[in-house]
Amino acid sequence: MEAKTPKESLTVLTDLVLPGDTNYLDNLFGGELLARMDRACSIAARRHSNRIVVTASVNHVAFNKSVPVGSVLTIEAKVSRAFKSSMEIYVDVWIEDRQSGQRTKVNEGIYTFVAVDEIGKPVAIPQINPETPLEIERFEGALRRKQLSLILAGKLNPSEATALKALFN
Amino acid sequence: MEAKTPKESLTVLTDLVLPGDTNYLDNLFGGELLARMDRACSIAARRHSNRIVVTASVNHVAFNKSVPVGSVLTIEAKVSRAFKSSMEIYVDVWIEDRQSGQRTKVNEGIYTFVAVDEIGKPVAIPQINPETPLEIERFEGALRRKQLSLILAGKLNPSEATALKALFN
Amino acid sequence: MEAKTPKESLTVLTDLVLPGDTNYLDNLFGGELLARMDRACSIAARRHSNRIVVTASVNHVAFNKSVPVGSVLTIEAKVSRAFKSSMEIYVDVWIEDRQSGQRTKVNEGIYTFVAVDEIGKPVAIPQINPETPLEIERFEGALRRKQLSLILAGKLNPSEATALKALFN
Amino acid sequence: MEAKTPKESLTVLTDLVLPGDTNYLDNLFGGELLARMDRACSIAARRHSNRIVVTASVNHVAFNKSVPVGSVLTIEAKVSRAFKSSMEIYVDVWIEDRQSGQRTKVNEGIYTFVAVDEIGKPVAIPQINPETPLEIERFEGALRRKQLSLILAGKLNPSEATALKALFN
Amino acid sequence: MEAKTPKESLTVLTDLVLPGDTNYLDNLFGGELLARMDRACSIAARRHSNRIVVTASVNHVAFNKSVPVGSVLTIEAKVSRAFKSSMEIYVDVWIEDRQSGQRTKVNEGIYTFVAVDEIGKPVAIPQINPETPLEIERFEGALRRKQLSLILAGKLNPSEATALKALFN
Amino acid sequence: MEAKTPKESLTVLTDLVLPGDTNYLDNLFGGELLARMDRACSIAARRHSNRIVVTASVNHVAFNKSVPVGSVLTIEAKVSRAFKSSMEIYVDVWIEDRQSGQRTKVNEGIYTFVAVDEIGKPVAIPQINPETPLEIERFEGALRRKQLSLILAGKLNPSEATALKALFN
Repeated sequence: MEAKTPKESLTVLTDLVLPGDTNYLDNLFGGELLARMDRACSIAARRHSNRIVVTASVNHVAFNKSVPVGSVLTIEAKVSRAFKSSMEIYVDVWIEDRQSGQRTKVNEGIYTFVAVDEIGKPVAIPQINPETPLEIERFEGALRRKQLSLILAGKLNPSEATALKALFN
Repeated sequence: MEAKTPKESLTVLTDLVLPGDTNYLDNLFGGELLARMDRACSIAARRHSNRIVVTASVNHVAFNKSVPVGSVLTIEAKVSRAFKSSMEIYVDVWIEDRQSGQRTKVNEGIYTFVAVDEIGKPVAIPQINPETPLEIERFEGALRRKQLSLILAGKLNPSEATALKALFN
Repeated sequence: MEAKTPKESLTVLTDLVLPGDTNYLDNLFGGELLARMDRACSIAARRHSNRIVVTASVNHVAFNKSVPVGSVLTIEAKVSRAFKSSMEIYVDVWIEDRQSGQRTKVNEGIYTFVAVDEIGKPVAIPQINPETPLEIERFEGALRRKQLSLILAGKLNPSEATALKALFN
Repeated sequence: MEAKTPKESLTVLTDLVLPGDTNYLDNLFGGELLARMDRACSIAARRHSNRIVVTASVNHVAFNKSVPVGSVLTIEAKVSRAFKSSMEIYVDVWIEDRQSGQRTKVNEGIYTFVAVDEIGKPVAIPQINPETPLEIERFEGALRRKQLSLILAGKLNPSEATALKALFN
Repeated sequence: MEAKTPKESLTVLTDLVLPGDTNYLDNLFGGELLARMDRACSIAARRHSNRIVVTASVNHVAFNKSVPVGSVLTIEAKVSRAFKSSMEIYVDVWIEDRQSGQRTKVNEGIYTFVAVDEIGKPVAIPQINPETPLEIERFEGALRRKQLSLILAGKLNPSEATALKALFN
Repeated sequence: MEAKTPKESLTVLTDLVLPGDTNYLDNLFGGELLARMDRACSIAARRHSNRIVVTASVNHVAFNKSVPVGSVLTIEAKVSRAFKSSMEIYVDVWIEDRQSGQRTKVNEGIYTFVAVDEIGKPVAIPQINPETPLEIERFEGALRRKQLSLILAGKLNPSEATALKALFN
């Protein structure tokens, strides 16, 4: 299987924030944003693997700024690293100012998806060749995050998490 | 006001077709697709005009192929021509094959939006400079479609629709 | 197959406009209205043909007035003309004043549906006998609109569009 | 205030049952049907009173037949009796067979609404003059149902419920 | 089959009231509340019977207080009495004050569900042993309500409704 | 401000998985589950702080088992540790077998919320006194997770993350 670039899985979901998507402060509801990010990530994972994909975990999503009703919201998801059958997807979220067209980053998240066959068994997927500096940075961080995730799940002993340990020495 | 290119208003809405979006044949419901196209067009119109925009009319939407549940649906909208305060937006819709990644065109539509100020009064907007052959073709057709729309609304006498008349001679 | 009257397919969809159906100006969102009109038209097409029906195209929808949240919205759809297996449906939309009960027309649209059998093949349908002056006017306009639609789709040469050509002479 | 007929408040809500409205047996979900009936009844109450109306109680809704996905569902609501500021609304629900067009009654319900002013205070409303035999039967039953409702709410002593007592002697 | 207590079927549905759930007065829409109550009751009925259950009727729902957007809404449903294959479920609804945490009862309802097998045939279910004073009171009222429901449906002669008759003597 | 126990913020959201909530494999869609978990967590955070709360981050959500349509899904959220104005909330998700009533854990997540005043400024909140062994374990892990979150956000130098460092020695 030939490696692919993150760009090949780039998925853009531009949509409005309507009143039915808000919390009682007239901002986009956190849960609705998590759901939209999940849909964008699942498409990126599918485009990378050409397989059925299922959400394995949400590793980190930070809500930096609230998103007011009426916003144009752009979600961009790209596979940042591929393992045997799982993929880490990085997703960035922006709103844009109507008058100036200026974009502001409001949110960022990391999801993990697994590629499976028709009966749900994990299958091998292409690896990732990062191209831009940001893609390389995220690619390298992905291993630390995977080890961390395994530790939190009790499936890896911290002393064996080589990439993570380096961080603390 | 400086003219803009269609590319500057390009809006991409990639999303999944989930069971809650389907008709009873397990295809994307026509009404739900119309709603998604309208949202993509309204963002393109807003990006072109940097103004509040409202739907004025749907001029033509052709449903060529049904869209099965589970599809990845990509909607791309771009302003094709600007008039005084109204804009014609062309919107193309594709699905993609999971295994090959191949895209198939399923639907195409033409919407008209009007840019308004805070109290709903139409305002002047930038003109369009088409760049690609397809953009030029759509730009030129837009005048005929506008005349047609005015005739259907009883606001223009067919004999004055110069661009349209030429078509029938 | 015996011809039917437009009245036999009349479909009335009266419903509220709730906050979850609005845009950020607290009016009914254009896309949501398009979706409701599509559902009403599909029922009218089904009542006329007694068949499974699918949306073929939206030929024209004009948004004349915005519909504020809290409105009672009435959508009335009727088949205006039947061709071999396709039908044109005219749909009118009103809101009503709560205190006086007075109705105001806010929107009007023209949809085309095709009747199909269980495997999606177009099937023959009954013809239409228009009764009221408005039904007759819409019936007569339907042929011009069909020719126009075929021209826009590149399936008819303008010089063969006899009903349309008459309009411009 | 002049009395009105039930016909003047007749509200018809015809709509499709889509997969997003179903339970896991592929039938219309009971809760979704209750919500649609409530919307139809609130419009009938508003048409009778020309006032803001709020749901006071659901007195009885019987689910006789399940409604399969893909059905055309028709809900018809009419005010059956008016009291000082509250109204009883009768609502009937049908599905129709696609091939024969035959309608089957699937459900029936009784709702009570109260007309209020802008600050939520109950206001006087027109009385009802029933016309058809069914309207007269429902009008007469409404008093018994109101007494029953008051007893269940602990606001009326059974011995004072004259209309109800007659039923048991 | 061994009898069960109401507590064994207790179902708690705590959720937010978001803008997409409201009417145009910014309160929870009556129909949406009816739908949520129905879902809670169906789970309670399923927990009591360990069977597939379907809504048979809504016997009484009283809306005492409106529920403003942003509320935390708690719905609690418990089987109050079991008959051969049908169950009466009592459902109570509260909102809570954010600052004091104090709960206020806003709504109460009575639903009837029937337990069925895979082909929809009613099946026998366990009986109920009420424990608390409120459970005992609701258990005893259930028979009167069932007779009443049968009378309203024309399936029982008032003179045979022994439990109800007692009320009026 | 007096400390509180996790139990005081316990929030239970029991609900059905309906077809409109599923992905195309007829399982609960990941994004919809994330949204429901977010709503349950926000209520727990509000019950602990008696304040307006906003989602700050999703720290970890693991999807262990898919949730088929028709499931009864129970989400339980409890504050696991409180910092100055932020709270960590642990959320557990179960489905239950209809016939045996047996519960199976399908998902677990960790969310962070911040308590704010009316203008969005963070405010002080009560501390947490864990009671059960599981609550104590989660309380102790919370500090490590907070440090980790700060490192990932570039707001803490790994060498200062005392609780985390201990893990790797």
